[in-house]
Amino acid sequence: MVGGGRGAFIGGVHRMAAAIDGEIELVCGAFSSNPEKSRLSGKDFYVPADRVYGSYAEMIEKEKQLPEGERMDFVSIVTPNHVHFGPAKMALENGFHVVCDKPLCFDLDEAEALEKIVEESGLIFALTHNYTGYPMVKQAKAMVANGDIGKVRKVVVEYPQGWLSTLLESTDQKQAAWRTDPARSGIAGAMGDIGTHAENLAEYITGLKIEKLCADISTIVDGRLLDDDGNVLLRFDNGARGVLHASQIAAGEENNLNIRVYGEKAGLQWHQMEPNTLTVKWQDKPTELLRTGVGELYPSAQSHTRLPAGHPEGYLEAFASIYRNFAHCVRARIEGKKVDPVYEDFPTVSDGVRGMKFIYKVIESGKSEEKWTKM
Amino acid sequence: MVGGGRGAFIGGVHRMAAAIDGEIELVCGAFSSNPEKSRLSGKDFYVPADRVYGSYAEMIEKEKQLPEGERMDFVSIVTPNHVHFGPAKMALENGFHVVCDKPLCFDLDEAEALEKIVEESGLIFALTHNYTGYPMVKQAKAMVANGDIGKVRKVVVEYPQGWLSTLLESTDQKQAAWRTDPARSGIAGAMGDIGTHAENLAEYITGLKIEKLCADISTIVDGRLLDDDGNVLLRFDNGARGVLHASQIAAGEENNLNIRVYGEKAGLQWHQMEPNTLTVKWQDKPTELLRTGVGELYPSAQSHTRLPAGHPEGYLEAFASIYRNFAHCVRARIEGKKVDPVYEDFPTVSDGVRGMKFIYKVIESGKSEEKWTKM
Amino acid sequence: MVGGGRGAFIGGVHRMAAAIDGEIELVCGAFSSNPEKSRLSGKDFYVPADRVYGSYAEMIEKEKQLPEGERMDFVSIVTPNHVHFGPAKMALENGFHVVCDKPLCFDLDEAEALEKIVEESGLIFALTHNYTGYPMVKQAKAMVANGDIGKVRKVVVEYPQGWLSTLLESTDQKQAAWRTDPARSGIAGAMGDIGTHAENLAEYITGLKIEKLCADISTIVDGRLLDDDGNVLLRFDNGARGVLHASQIAAGEENNLNIRVYGEKAGLQWHQMEPNTLTVKWQDKPTELLRTGVGELYPSAQSHTRLPAGHPEGYLEAFASIYRNFAHCVRARIEGKKVDPVYEDFPTVSDGVRGMKFIYKVIESGKSEEKWTKM
Amino acid sequence: MVGGGRGAFIGGVHRMAAAIDGEIELVCGAFSSNPEKSRLSGKDFYVPADRVYGSYAEMIEKEKQLPEGERMDFVSIVTPNHVHFGPAKMALENGFHVVCDKPLCFDLDEAEALEKIVEESGLIFALTHNYTGYPMVKQAKAMVANGDIGKVRKVVVEYPQGWLSTLLESTDQKQAAWRTDPARSGIAGAMGDIGTHAENLAEYITGLKIEKLCADISTIVDGRLLDDDGNVLLRFDNGARGVLHASQIAAGEENNLNIRVYGEKAGLQWHQMEPNTLTVKWQDKPTELLRTGVGELYPSAQSHTRLPAGHPEGYLEAFASIYRNFAHCVRARIEGKKVDPVYEDFPTVSDGVRGMKFIYKVIESGKSEEKWTKM
Repeated sequence: MVGGGRGAFIGGVHRMAAAIDGEIELVCGAFSSNPEKSRLSGKDFYVPADRVYGSYAEMIEKEKQLPEGERMDFVSIVTPNHVHFGPAKMALENGFHVVCDKPLCFDLDEAEALEKIVEESGLIFALTHNYTGYPMVKQAKAMVANGDIGKVRKVVVEYPQGWLSTLLESTDQKQAAWRTDPARSGIAGAMGDIGTHAENLAEYITGLKIEKLCADISTIVDGRLLDDDGNVLLRFDNGARGVLHASQIAAGEENNLNIRVYGEKAGLQWHQMEPNTLTVKWQDKPTELLRTGVGELYPSAQSHTRLPAGHPEGYLEAFASIYRNFAHCVRARIEGKKVDPVYEDFPTVSDGVRGMKFIYKVIESGKSEEKWTKM
Repeated sequence: MVGGGRGAFIGGVHRMAAAIDGEIELVCGAFSSNPEKSRLSGKDFYVPADRVYGSYAEMIEKEKQLPEGERMDFVSIVTPNHVHFGPAKMALENGFHVVCDKPLCFDLDEAEALEKIVEESGLIFALTHNYTGYPMVKQAKAMVANGDIGKVRKVVVEYPQGWLSTLLESTDQKQAAWRTDPARSGIAGAMGDIGTHAENLAEYITGLKIEKLCADISTIVDGRLLDDDGNVLLRFDNGARGVLHASQIAAGEENNLNIRVYGEKAGLQWHQMEPNTLTVKWQDKPTELLRTGVGELYPSAQSHTRLPAGHPEGYLEAFASIYRNFAHCVRARIEGKKVDPVYEDFPTVSDGVRGMKFIYKVIESGKSEEKWTKM
Repeated sequence: MVGGGRGAFIGGVHRMAAAIDGEIELVCGAFSSNPEKSRLSGKDFYVPADRVYGSYAEMIEKEKQLPEGERMDFVSIVTPNHVHFGPAKMALENGFHVVCDKPLCFDLDEAEALEKIVEESGLIFALTHNYTGYPMVKQAKAMVANGDIGKVRKVVVEYPQGWLSTLLESTDQKQAAWRTDPARSGIAGAMGDIGTHAENLAEYITGLKIEKLCADISTIVDGRLLDDDGNVLLRFDNGARGVLHASQIAAGEENNLNIRVYGEKAGLQWHQMEPNTLTVKWQDKPTELLRTGVGELYPSAQSHTRLPAGHPEGYLEAFASIYRNFAHCVRARIEGKKVDPVYEDFPTVSDGVRGMKFIYKVIESGKSEEKWTKM
Repeated sequence: MVGGGRGAFIGGVHRMAAAIDGEIELVCGAFSSNPEKSRLSGKDFYVPADRVYGSYAEMIEKEKQLPEGERMDFVSIVTPNHVHFGPAKMALENGFHVVCDKPLCFDLDEAEALEKIVEESGLIFALTHNYTGYPMVKQAKAMVANGDIGKVRKVVVEYPQGWLSTLLESTDQKQAAWRTDPARSGIAGAMGDIGTHAENLAEYITGLKIEKLCADISTIVDGRLLDDDGNVLLRFDNGARGVLHASQIAAGEENNLNIRVYGEKAGLQWHQMEPNTLTVKWQDKPTELLRTGVGELYPSAQSHTRLPAGHPEGYLEAFASIYRNFAHCVRARIEGKKVDPVYEDFPTVSDGVRGMKFIYKVIESGKSEEKWTKM
C-alpha cells in the first residue's frame, strides 16, 4: 500500500475493503511520505516492521528482491491525485499489478501515459470507482443491457455534498486541504472528486458514452481555488439526453449520489445512501422495489451480494467487491488459470482515462461561451 | 366557469377546490363550446338551466344584465391555453374578476396585452399556479425570506412525468391531444405545461428571478409536434446557480415535482407527492422534518393549513387556498373593506407573464448555439 | 348540522368534506348548545339566519315543518360522544337520514338502542369512520376479498399519537378536555377515540371479525381520568393472529395510523400519513407500490379517486367519499331510483355498534386477570 | 472457529466481520462435524491444512499444545444452538476466550451452567447479538441513559420476517431445517431465533428489564414443529408498557427489525434495514434525523463508526464492532494492559442467559391461560 497512514480517510477504506472477503492480506506499505509516520502506521496495521518502507520507490525495489510467493502480489495506491502516476508507473514497470484510487491521475497527459504503460505491461489494473460495486448497480446495468427498460432516453445523475459549504480548507482539515489545492488535485475540485463518480456511474449503468456536454462550473465559496459546484447538460452517443450535477456546497447534504435512467418502458432509480434498493418505475405496471438478496436478480447482482435479504450491505462491501474481483483475477494469473468471468468486473485504467477526459471537457465547457463541447 | 365540461380534468379540480372552504358557489357556466354538452354538464353540476350558457360571450353578456348581488362575482377560465385570452379579456372589460388556469395565454403577446387589461381594469386576477398553495411551500418561502438558510446559492427543481412516453395523442386521449397540439398549446409542450410550474415554484420560494438560462429542449417521441423533455441550466439574479429539468417521457414517473434550495446554512427540500413534509438539511445540526400543522411554523404556513397535524392535505387543498384567498379579496372589494393581507397571496397576471417569458426564452435557448440566453 | 360551531375541529372537517363533490349544501344548523354562538357560527358559514337554530330539537322540529324539497335532507351530528344519541334518535324518528361522527354513542346501551331505531326507521345512517374512505384502503380490502394475498394469517394495526403526552386537559385545550372526560367521552379515552379507528380499519380491510382479545390498558399521565395507552393481542374468526396498539402518549407522533395484513402469499401495508401508497410485499416477487390513480386498480379504488396519478389526495377527500356515497344513496331514495352499488360503501350503524362493543371488551380485558376476553 | 463450513450462513458473516478491522486473523478451525467437509472448507478460507481439525475437541486439544503466541487466542462458535454449550465449555476450561453466536445455548440449564463456567474461568465471553453494534443503536442507548427523552413510557419492538411462510424445512433448505427442529433449536423457533434479538435490543437501548409478559405464541404453517409467530405484551421494571412481535410468516418481509422507544419528551425510532438513521420525534420541536457520522453524536456512537457521513454502513460493520471490541479486550488481557472502556461494550454471557430466560417465559406464557407471566 502506498499512502493511507494515520489520519488518512481512504486508506482505511481500502484496508477494510480488501480484508472483508479473506482473499487479501496487507503485507507491506509505504504509508506516508514521512518515514516515521509510515513506521508508526505500519505498526497500527500489524505489518512487520521490516516491510514498512519510507517511500514507494523503496517499497517496490525491496519487495521486488523478495522471492516470488513472499513478495507482495500487487500495489494499492491511496495517495492524493498528484501521487498516483509515479507509484503506478514504477509498480507496473516492475511487474506488480496495481489498484489505484480515483481519479486516475493528476492530469490527462499522465492518464494517457499510464494507460499505455498498463497496456504494454499486460498487468492487471483496477481503479476504485467503488459505486459500481453495489449489487443493485450491477442489477441496473444488467437490466439496461438486457433491454428490460427499452432504449435509454434520459439520464439524471447527481452528487450533492455539503461539507465544503464553508472555506474548510482554511482550517486544519486535511481532506479539504488537498482536495481544493490545484497543486495536489489537478484542474478540478468537485468535478474531479465527485463529478467523475457521477459520470462513471452513468456510463457504467447505461453502457452509453457521453458525446457532448454543456457545463456551468462555479466556485461559490470565496477564496476557494477550485470549482465547488457544477451543473452539466449531457448528450449520450445513442441520442439520450442527460443532466449531471454535483456540488460540495449543497448545504446539509451528505453523499447524496442518486441516478435515474429512463428508458422507453421504465425508469430506474438508485440512491447511494440507501443502496440496497433499486426502484423500477414501470410505465404500465406498479413500481417495483428490487432489493439486494431478494428473489430473481441478474447473476451479476447475485454474485456481488454477501448476505441474505434484509441484512443491509454498504459502502465497504461495494468497495470490497472491486478488491475481491481484482484479487481473483490476480490469483488466476499467478496460478496460470482462467478466471471466472464474473470476477472480470471492475473499473480499469480506461475508465480512469475516460474520467480524466470528462474532467478536462467539463472544465473547458465551463469556460466556453459555446453551448456544446465534444467529449 | 368557462370550460370544464364532462370529460375535462382541470375543470373538476377547480370546482372541488373552489367548494372546499364554503366561500364560493358555482352559479353559472359555459362549460363547453358545444352548447348541448354545456347544458348536460351544467345539469351534472346542479347549475340552474337558465344560467348554463352556450358560449362564454353569452355568459358574460347575460350575467352582466342580472342585478348586482345576483350575477356571478367572478369568472373561472379552465379551457385549453388558446381559449384563455378571449374570455379573460371580455370578463375584465365587463367588470368581472377572473381566475385563470396556467399558462396564462397562448402566446407572449396575448399575455402582455392581458396584463395591461388587468392593470387598467383594476380588477382582481388569479392564476392557478397551484403548487404555491401548499403550506410547506409557504414555509419554505418564509424561511428563505427570513434568512434562515442564508443567501441562496443553488436551486435544483425538477418535474418528471412519464405519461407521454408513447404517442398518446395518436389515441383518443383528450388531455394528450390538446397539450401536444401547437394550435392549442402554443409554442411549447412540456415546458409550457409543467416547466412553468417548476419555474414559478423556484422563483416563488427563493424570491429570486432567473436572469439567464441555457436549455436543451427535445422532442423524444417520434411524431410528436412539441417538446416533451427539457433540461435547463439557470443563473439567478443574486448569482445563484440552478438546474431545472422537466419531462413527460420520464417513464414510470407520476408528478414527481421536487425542489431543493441550498443556502449558506441549510438546504430545503420539498416534494409534491409527499407535500406535508419540508426537509431542512442543516449544515451544522441534524436534519429536521417540518410537517404541516406541527409546531411553530411561519404564519403564512399556518394560515394555509386546514387540519391538525397528521391528517394529510393534498393537491385539492393547495388549489383551494388560491380560490379561498382570491374569494376573500373579491368579497372585501365587494363589501368595500380592507382585506386581511394573509389572503393577498396568490399568483397574479404578472406571474403569468413571467411564465410566458420563461416559455419563450427556454424554447429560444433550445434552438440557440449560444450558451446563455437572457430572460 | 348539529354541533361544529366556532372553535370545533371535526365540524369544519365535515363541512369541507361534504362540500368537495358539489353534491351537498349546508342549509341549516344548530351549531352550538349556546344559541348566540350557534348564530355567529351560522353567519360564518353563510347559513341563512332563519335556519340557524338554538338547539337540535328546535332544528328538527322547525325543519320538519318546511315543505318537502325545501327542508334539510339529512342531519350531520358532529358533537362530542355524549350528544350523539339524542339528536340521532330524534332525527330518525322525524324521518331524517343521519350522518354521525364516531364513536357511535356514549355507551353500548345507547348504541344498541340506536341500531334498533335505524332499522325500524328504514332510513340511511352513515358513521364517519373516515379512514375507510381512502382509495388505497379500498384496494387493500378488494385484494384480500379476491384472494390476492391468500388466507389472512396476521394483522398488525397501530395508531400512535403523542398529543396527550402531558396533562393537556388541565389547560384550556377544548379537544383534550372532552376527550379525557368520562362524562362526555364514555368509559374509554384513547381506545374510544382512536382504538376504534384501528379496529374498524382492520375488520374493514380483512373482512374478518375479532373473536377474542387480550388487552393491556393504561393511564400513563398522572391525573388523567381515562386510558391514554392500549396494547392488545387479537384473534380473528378465521384463526388469524393480530396485534393492535394505540396511544396518545407516544411522544412526537402525529397520526401514525398504520396497518399490515399478512396473507399466505403477500403482506399489505398502508400508512395513513402517506395514504396514496399501498405497499404489497410479495413472497415470491418484488415488492410493489400501488398508487392512487395509477394503473389497474380494483373498481372500488378507482371510483373513490378524484385526481389523476401524482396529485396527492388526503384526509378530506377520504372523508368526502363517505359523504358523497351517502349523498348518492339519499338522493336515490328521494328520487325513488336504484342507487349505483358503488355508492353503498360507507360505515353504518352496525359498524358503530361493533366499535362500541370493542371499546367495552377492550376495557373489560384491561381489568381482567384472564388472558382472553371474547368479543 | 467451530462450524461455519461450506454452505453455512452465519459462519461467513463471522469471518467477514472479524476481518474488517484488521485486528483478527483466522488461524484454525473445525468447520464441520464432517472432517472432509471441514478440510475443504479450511482450504477455501486459506487456513493452513495442519490447523484444520475434524472436531472442536480435537481443535481445542491440539491448539492448546501449541506454544503461546502461536496458538489461537480465542474460539468462535458458529454452530446451531445445540452445539454451543459443548465447545464453549471445553474452550473455557482450556483457557480460551469465546465468541458465541446467539441464542446462548440449547436450553436454560445449559445457559446457566455456562454462565457459571465463564464466571469461574475469568475469561472473556462475547455473544453476537449483533444489532447492538450499530452506531445509531449506541446513540439511542446513550440518549435514553442521558435522559434526553425523559422517562421511558412505552416500547414497541418488532421483527417480522417472511421466509418461513411455507414449510421450507420440508425442502433441502439447511437454514430452515435446523431452525425449525426442536432437536437442534431448542423449545422455540421464531422466538429463539429472532424474538430474542428483539428482546435484547429493547433492553439494551432502554436499560430497562422486562418484568412480566403476556404472549400469544403460534405455529401458523401446518406441519411445523416450533413456533413461527409470536405477539407479546410487555411490562418493564420502571412501569413502561411494551409490545413485542416477531414472525417468520409475515409474508414478503425481509428482516424488518424496528424499535420505537417513547419517553416523556420524545420518541426514538430505529429500523435495521436503514440502520444509519435514528429518527427522533420530539414532542415540542421538529422531528430530527440523526445519521451515522453526522454532527455531534454521543461518543459511543462515534467510536463505532468507521466512515464519514453519507457512506452507508451495514450489518457486517455492526457485527464487526462486536469482534473489534472483543479483540481489544482479549489483546489487552494478553498484553496485561488496561483496555479502553469504549471497547468493553459487547453482549456477554449474562445477556445470553437473559435471552434464554425470555425464550422460556414467552413459551410458558404462550401456553398459559393466565394473563401475566413473570420473568
